[in-house]
Amino acid sequence: MLAPQLALQLVQGSVGLDPSIEQALELIGIFVFGVSGGLVAVRKDFDLVGVIALASVTALGGGLIRDALLGDTPPPGLTEPSSLLVPLLAAAVVFAAHVQIERRWLRPHLVFDAAGLGLFCVTGTVKALTFGLTGIGAVALGVLTATGGGVGRDVLAQEEPVLFRADTVLYGIPAALGAGAITVANHYGRLSGPTAAAVATAVFALRIAALRFAWHAPRPRNRRPTGEGG
Amino acid sequence: MLAPQLALQLVQGSVGLDPSIEQALELIGIFVFGVSGGLVAVRKDFDLVGVIALASVTALGGGLIRDALLGDTPPPGLTEPSSLLVPLLAAAVVFAAHVQIERRWLRPHLVFDAAGLGLFCVTGTVKALTFGLTGIGAVALGVLTATGGGVGRDVLAQEEPVLFRADTVLYGIPAALGAGAITVANHYGRLSGPTAAAVATAVFALRIAALRFAWHAPRPRNRRPTGEGG
Amino acid sequence: MLAPQLALQLVQGSVGLDPSIEQALELIGIFVFGVSGGLVAVRKDFDLVGVIALASVTALGGGLIRDALLGDTPPPGLTEPSSLLVPLLAAAVVFAAHVQIERRWLRPHLVFDAAGLGLFCVTGTVKALTFGLTGIGAVALGVLTATGGGVGRDVLAQEEPVLFRADTVLYGIPAALGAGAITVANHYGRLSGPTAAAVATAVFALRIAALRFAWHAPRPRNRRPTGEGG
Repeated sequence: MLAPQLALQLVQGSVGLDPSIEQALELIGIFVFGVSGGLVAVRKDFDLVGVIALASVTALGGGLIRDALLGDTPPPGLTEPSSLLVPLLAAAVVFAAHVQIERRWLRPHLVFDAAGLGLFCVTGTVKALTFGLTGIGAVALGVLTATGGGVGRDVLAQEEPVLFRADTVLYGIPAALGAGAITVANHYGRLSGPTAAAVATAVFALRIAALRFAWHAPRPRNRRPTGEGG
Repeated sequence: MLAPQLALQLVQGSVGLDPSIEQALELIGIFVFGVSGGLVAVRKDFDLVGVIALASVTALGGGLIRDALLGDTPPPGLTEPSSLLVPLLAAAVVFAAHVQIERRWLRPHLVFDAAGLGLFCVTGTVKALTFGLTGIGAVALGVLTATGGGVGRDVLAQEEPVLFRADTVLYGIPAALGAGAITVANHYGRLSGPTAAAVATAVFALRIAALRFAWHAPRPRNRRPTGEGG
Repeated sequence: MLAPQLALQLVQGSVGLDPSIEQALELIGIFVFGVSGGLVAVRKDFDLVGVIALASVTALGGGLIRDALLGDTPPPGLTEPSSLLVPLLAAAVVFAAHVQIERRWLRPHLVFDAAGLGLFCVTGTVKALTFGLTGIGAVALGVLTATGGGVGRDVLAQEEPVLFRADTVLYGIPAALGAGAITVANHYGRLSGPTAAAVATAVFALRIAALRFAWHAPRPRNRRPTGEGG
């Protein structure tokens, strides 16, 4: 089990890195998720309200649903000003410079998004463990934290969730493996700052490798009469 | 009003049947709802992540929203391992055998789904009553418990919710009648295990009859210039 | 900061008007939001279940999500019978008389909807302040209270949220300005009944003016190759 003090430390902002570095990473993660929401809003031809809403939901949605389910209310996503200001900043940047972002920043954006994925699946799982969840429940909330905002973005934009699409390069599976690793480490009393940092890094690396080598999650066999897939 | 002890008993797993039978029914209900979510994911050509996500949301979504609204956090759907393992199992079965399920098991599937509808509208209403809701609030949460997961499934799959469609055979109305019967029985101090079991059975029977005789909910009059409907 | 007693008073139903007038306004707001949900359900050719569900989600959804995030559970929207009966009434009226509503009542409907917008952004922000949120978090929940139900309606109807569409006349921005004004007034210790009433009225007036003069929120520049927009 997770020692309460370590848990607190982990949740308050350490996955084994220097706290200020990790806080910076977390804000970068929120920003990058916010940009991804804003870009979808622009593509859908939404107005300023839509850009702000999609940026905020993408950046904070996963964590807010996690906190409502854990009973951590009002959630930090609403009480810490930076949580809400950073998505607003992301919305403003998208609003002003989406053409430039799409032209030059989509590749770096994917790298930061992968960092957010690794970080949030770890911090989400750790938070679930500190609230008494174990095993598969903690894994589920870790994955929800990292991926729920993007699903909310797609639902609000009336698009099929990218997370579920067969042409999507591995995204949910690295998050699930990372959340699982944290949960197993905790079960065996081996969850520490360095472990958490190593898991976040591994999730990041797996996502980057999946992008590089176009790895996809398995699909159901024989989905179509033609018998493709598998 | 519901006596706390009876309430606890009812929520912990008795609607008047042998507890082990009812727990089995509940897991079957979760499994069947999970299969229905997985099949939609296959039809939408989603990957493994989508199959697992839709199976889980369909099986647990209604109960999780109910528990977040009641303040029962973290909810049993996340703390009891079987709640999450059974949807995973349903996802695995769909992933491996969806062709066979669609060919041979869709009719039995509808029967089990009707059993889940009856069971969950009763347990959801009872749980709402134990948390102090009365009247129409308890009915609303009972219906939400039984039908919310399916609506979540359809929203994530970007399809019109089957629950609302005019060509859908009665589904929400049996749940509402069942939730209403439980609430009325509770108001008159007549809510007992056998009553709960009778209501769950009646909801099941009404749903099966609706399937057999193609009963539909009423539709608004004069929806179209041609004046059809009513 | 908001004095607890004033806060209680404000939340319990006074934004500076006679309490019975304000309660009447609140029920009218719920009714009008419910009608808007029911009309979308009719247009989508949904059945009675869909009409009731969309009326209820539109009328209560924003407040329910707010309360789940604040931890005010079970929320008043489920415990006060009138909160649920009024959307049912709205659904019944739409079910029976949607043709007449669409022909003759859409303009008055927009006026009442604007009143609901002003009222709910104020009461939602005040409630968030009483639960300890400050600054941007309180503004976010105020806007969510006033607009979240409509977004839920559109998601369930599988339509692009009207709130985000570029052809939508100002809706979210008046709510955000109103929520911001309440938050600023509270910060400077100047939140009182008359202030709250003035803000609600100003939001109402701004929405009506936007309808009259077809004011739109800004859109991202250069969305399309043709270079329109801005």
